[in-house]
Amino acid sequence: MHPSQTVGSALPEHALNVAVIGAGYWGPNLARNFHASPDWRLTTICDLDAERANRLADAVGGAAVEGSVQALLEDPGLDAVAIATPARTHHSIAAAALAAGKHVLVEKPLADTLAHGEQMVRLAEASGLVLMADHTYCYTPAIQKIRELIAAGELGDILFIDSVRINLGLIQQDVDVFWDLAPHDLAILDFVLPQGLRPVRVSAHGSDPLGAGKACVGHLVLELETGAMAHIHVNWLSPTKIRQLVIGGSRRTLVWDDLNPQQRVSVYDRGVDLGTGTGLAERSQSNISYRLGDTWSPALPEHEALAAMVTEFAASIRAGRQAQTSGGAGVRVLSVLDAATRSQQAGTPVALPTLELESAS
Amino acid sequence: MHPSQTVGSALPEHALNVAVIGAGYWGPNLARNFHASPDWRLTTICDLDAERANRLADAVGGAAVEGSVQALLEDPGLDAVAIATPARTHHSIAAAALAAGKHVLVEKPLADTLAHGEQMVRLAEASGLVLMADHTYCYTPAIQKIRELIAAGELGDILFIDSVRINLGLIQQDVDVFWDLAPHDLAILDFVLPQGLRPVRVSAHGSDPLGAGKACVGHLVLELETGAMAHIHVNWLSPTKIRQLVIGGSRRTLVWDDLNPQQRVSVYDRGVDLGTGTGLAERSQSNISYRLGDTWSPALPEHEALAAMVTEFAASIRAGRQAQTSGGAGVRVLSVLDAATRSQQAGTPVALPTLELESAS
Amino acid sequence: MHPSQTVGSALPEHALNVAVIGAGYWGPNLARNFHASPDWRLTTICDLDAERANRLADAVGGAAVEGSVQALLEDPGLDAVAIATPARTHHSIAAAALAAGKHVLVEKPLADTLAHGEQMVRLAEASGLVLMADHTYCYTPAIQKIRELIAAGELGDILFIDSVRINLGLIQQDVDVFWDLAPHDLAILDFVLPQGLRPVRVSAHGSDPLGAGKACVGHLVLELETGAMAHIHVNWLSPTKIRQLVIGGSRRTLVWDDLNPQQRVSVYDRGVDLGTGTGLAERSQSNISYRLGDTWSPALPEHEALAAMVTEFAASIRAGRQAQTSGGAGVRVLSVLDAATRSQQAGTPVALPTLELESAS
Amino acid sequence: MHPSQTVGSALPEHALNVAVIGAGYWGPNLARNFHASPDWRLTTICDLDAERANRLADAVGGAAVEGSVQALLEDPGLDAVAIATPARTHHSIAAAALAAGKHVLVEKPLADTLAHGEQMVRLAEASGLVLMADHTYCYTPAIQKIRELIAAGELGDILFIDSVRINLGLIQQDVDVFWDLAPHDLAILDFVLPQGLRPVRVSAHGSDPLGAGKACVGHLVLELETGAMAHIHVNWLSPTKIRQLVIGGSRRTLVWDDLNPQQRVSVYDRGVDLGTGTGLAERSQSNISYRLGDTWSPALPEHEALAAMVTEFAASIRAGRQAQTSGGAGVRVLSVLDAATRSQQAGTPVALPTLELESAS
Repeated sequence: MHPSQTVGSALPEHALNVAVIGAGYWGPNLARNFHASPDWRLTTICDLDAERANRLADAVGGAAVEGSVQALLEDPGLDAVAIATPARTHHSIAAAALAAGKHVLVEKPLADTLAHGEQMVRLAEASGLVLMADHTYCYTPAIQKIRELIAAGELGDILFIDSVRINLGLIQQDVDVFWDLAPHDLAILDFVLPQGLRPVRVSAHGSDPLGAGKACVGHLVLELETGAMAHIHVNWLSPTKIRQLVIGGSRRTLVWDDLNPQQRVSVYDRGVDLGTGTGLAERSQSNISYRLGDTWSPALPEHEALAAMVTEFAASIRAGRQAQTSGGAGVRVLSVLDAATRSQQAGTPVALPTLELESAS
Repeated sequence: MHPSQTVGSALPEHALNVAVIGAGYWGPNLARNFHASPDWRLTTICDLDAERANRLADAVGGAAVEGSVQALLEDPGLDAVAIATPARTHHSIAAAALAAGKHVLVEKPLADTLAHGEQMVRLAEASGLVLMADHTYCYTPAIQKIRELIAAGELGDILFIDSVRINLGLIQQDVDVFWDLAPHDLAILDFVLPQGLRPVRVSAHGSDPLGAGKACVGHLVLELETGAMAHIHVNWLSPTKIRQLVIGGSRRTLVWDDLNPQQRVSVYDRGVDLGTGTGLAERSQSNISYRLGDTWSPALPEHEALAAMVTEFAASIRAGRQAQTSGGAGVRVLSVLDAATRSQQAGTPVALPTLELESAS
Repeated sequence: MHPSQTVGSALPEHALNVAVIGAGYWGPNLARNFHASPDWRLTTICDLDAERANRLADAVGGAAVEGSVQALLEDPGLDAVAIATPARTHHSIAAAALAAGKHVLVEKPLADTLAHGEQMVRLAEASGLVLMADHTYCYTPAIQKIRELIAAGELGDILFIDSVRINLGLIQQDVDVFWDLAPHDLAILDFVLPQGLRPVRVSAHGSDPLGAGKACVGHLVLELETGAMAHIHVNWLSPTKIRQLVIGGSRRTLVWDDLNPQQRVSVYDRGVDLGTGTGLAERSQSNISYRLGDTWSPALPEHEALAAMVTEFAASIRAGRQAQTSGGAGVRVLSVLDAATRSQQAGTPVALPTLELESAS
Repeated sequence: MHPSQTVGSALPEHALNVAVIGAGYWGPNLARNFHASPDWRLTTICDLDAERANRLADAVGGAAVEGSVQALLEDPGLDAVAIATPARTHHSIAAAALAAGKHVLVEKPLADTLAHGEQMVRLAEASGLVLMADHTYCYTPAIQKIRELIAAGELGDILFIDSVRINLGLIQQDVDVFWDLAPHDLAILDFVLPQGLRPVRVSAHGSDPLGAGKACVGHLVLELETGAMAHIHVNWLSPTKIRQLVIGGSRRTLVWDDLNPQQRVSVYDRGVDLGTGTGLAERSQSNISYRLGDTWSPALPEHEALAAMVTEFAASIRAGRQAQTSGGAGVRVLSVLDAATRSQQAGTPVALPTLELESAS
């Protein structure tokens, strides 16, 4: 079914065999990057739609084509699968793949429900296989740099977060705007925050002004463990396109503007300093001072996020460790989305239990 | 005490006599505009701090100076007062001025509590005098144009609103960031929305990451009568300065960017159109289409907002009508601020009763 | 050598056979678009470097590969060639192709010298074949819209032109910054100006501050037939990237900002109006007034420029007419570049003779 | 005539007496800053138009008013005059003031002709008095910082300069767009360049597309002593307003954007590095590399430029030294404007003799 036996000698010894399941919107991006990676040998495209699968296989150097996931998983030479099918199918395919001993990469969101995601993580842990969430933004040079800066203490304590992701967008059939867009913001926050994304309380405000049957405009407010507040604005109806994240810190504040290629990351050495007085009265009055320092925009290396992501997938398999964007990260994202749905239904904030599935990536 | 008797003949017959109470931060702006207006004769500056009052009086052509509000109000020649003192004093000064038969202009916010504001409106109604809120932004060319465009139906139905007002700001002693900054956004919304600002539910999320004893970062979510959601972000800790308002409509979407003098108002002829099918299933699927039309930025006349504001104050007095930004508008703003405080305390959304004080301006 | 005989029946009757000569930087873009076009059947990739040719042929559905231009041109089934080789080879390849009865598309610049370009046009005219310049920008939605607006008189008379194309750029081995970058600006101006690009005088100011042996920063000033002045700034040393064109008109002024995807074209209804007085004294004084009208940004259709370009190539062949960006357009561009080189050498402006090769496209 | 005798004791011992000549557009700005400065006592406003002079005198604390320059200069208590009259009157007023022993500040341009400016400098030198050019931009925090950065070698050698100053502007009666706007750019360059502004060759390209009788759009190209090229674009007809200066250096490149208050100065650590090979062939080929480093925007102190300018005027008088923007700086600016006029008339570049009036400020 796959050509690995015949062409193996021409590839690096350590190339791992991978199949892409789902040849729709995202699958071709994954396939192209697996094909281009020295770490991987893309053996198979798997899709029920044979024509679509063939077209993709042709475009990536003639991979094999397979219509049945079950048949695919029976291949003993296959090391891993990448799942790019609709979210409601992630759980069953991943479960089957893990049962067949394959490492698994899953397009965001990890699953269609929190319970499904949690079970996937448990299955991976039990099997000792890698379960990785394809949180693509985390592998962009900008987000990698932001994670580094925060880890190095350049921002100080995180005081507030504001993330905006708005654009004229396709109204999805299955999911609301929170489940469609916020996974990006949540995955980024989970990646860059030193403790990962661990809100203690979630409030979701959704609006369906067109009568589309689901929220098309949404505001998500997270109360973090540290007391800081994170706000996420997602919107399918905005005529302007904004993808911006502000992370306010006690030392500096960082702005990520993904649509400004000439200055994607800016670090402002500005802020409010409170004096050392311990009393509230003292603090709130005369001891406040302002820093109006320089602005700095770090140079960013140029690489494609997906190339770095498939490299990390291979590296985590070889090292027998969690991927940087692990299944646990995917569950933390689902946990907030799940709380957002419950908050909308209840019309009140929802408290989250402490997550214990795994330590932050 | 004031020079109106002696110089009266040199002024237009219809000039009204006004005194400015409070010579601190905002009073000088009011005084300067009253002084420059043909509609007004600025007779007196009233402040407990005589030196400050004298300095301001000198700067505006030599108005008289008075230390006592009571003495000021005894002047039978005085037609009106403008109150630019701390918010906690607005109610008592306005009540005394109305009792003395003077028309009253009050700096935002109208009062320090909703109850005080409501009582001020009742006193004004009982006396037949004008009580006007100095909602300055409403008199800028941009906001006037936005009101016109919405009234003319150019945006269609309002679908969503997002207002951002963030900057490195002085942490106020008396009030939190909602009471300090949001009055501007709320006054603007009250002014441009055809029905005025009439939310049925208010959620406020405030955060005090510096331990200043009050919220320094705030998100306010309003559910409007029409079902649309309005969101307001106010922030004293942002290193970047943004003053932006997006009003999404069923026909077009408008963006106000107050800090872009070359294109303050943009109207986007873009959006999502739902088909005419009545069933939800139908609506949420195939009948959706996108409009990607032109963007248009209207030319705006150039005038100072405060000049237009003092003109409107005189016009409303002469016509015996409510000002465009009436006391009722001030109360609607207070009503939301009051609900925001209660929502923060309760940790849940707060429902608002229907306001019945007066019709929308 | 090419597979047209065998697969012909599966293609539209009218598909024309084309070969791409040159598989380096630009050839793959041409090949990809010919491959995707229903108007064309991409039969052959021709390059001396067989491996490079094979790689490209694979990527576009398995075209044939040929190392010899002469052998390629002997194929009677071939209708046209697209030349994407270094500029110094354009003339000889195009001459051979025209002699062999093939229509010819040439990457910019049309030739390495004005004389070569002029001869290519004469050969094409003599043979009755299409000679087209690949002035790609002219087929972008933005430039097409600008041409329409000017043709419709929306800008009025052209008063001034300013074009900026600067970025950190590769210092070319063979050509200076004028020959590398300005062909884009000149081709655009030739395309959008109603009379084509017909300067009467050219001044070039080049600078080689790094000692690279050629100009790396350049300013080109063109005096147009109409008396208007056009200025072009090209620069390999700029740390910021700007691609912007301003066309000032007596009625309106247009700005093209190629790097602002949300508002690529803006039309400003602003300007200076002179009164109708005929005397200079009168004109220069009191009759001047300013218009501060609206700004308007037209929606642009989305299509790839190269797709439209190959469509136009086929259309011009079928209609037996000049292409929109004809060989004559290419010569007009070369004529200015040639004058720029002479102006730099002479240190003075250079007058251009009236071009008579063909009417403006 | 002036009140210095009577109120002297209330002022700092060292306050110098100054009169402002000309109460039109610029005079009020000068008067306001002299009035507010502890270094100065503004004694008199001098203008032929008594009403205008009185109005200004009132606005700045009641200075005396004088209609005659001659009478003004007879006052032995007067230390200095600031000339804010039309440029054609600068020379005669300054000459009279210097003859009367007064230090002189002159609004830009220093004079209406180069010869006049040169004579003014000679008169000042002969008399030992300060002659200062009011090159206001040089006293802004941004330009001061740029001068510091260049002096500290942060940019390395200057490779190229590009200055753009365009806007819808009043068409001046007496002067063309070069004389109206370029003095700002030239004064800035003279101030920030380590050797001052010393071009060896000037080319001016002006255009009068409206038939206004003078150039309304202009491009000025300066060949500097160092071989670098500076380009200045001035334009009265642009619907957009741009005030931007790029200074490209061998180490870093600096961008000043005067209309971006949040990031007025940006320093790009990007550029092209040539290898150390001495041969041209070597240099132009493989030894080129690119630096893509960080961007940095220094915090700027906040002060009004004119306040710093009047402080410098006093400081230079007290120290008996040239002002930072000396008469010589004014002459260097005039020298380029004069060459620009000659270049336009001749239609060719104009060589400049080495200036020897004084060393660079």
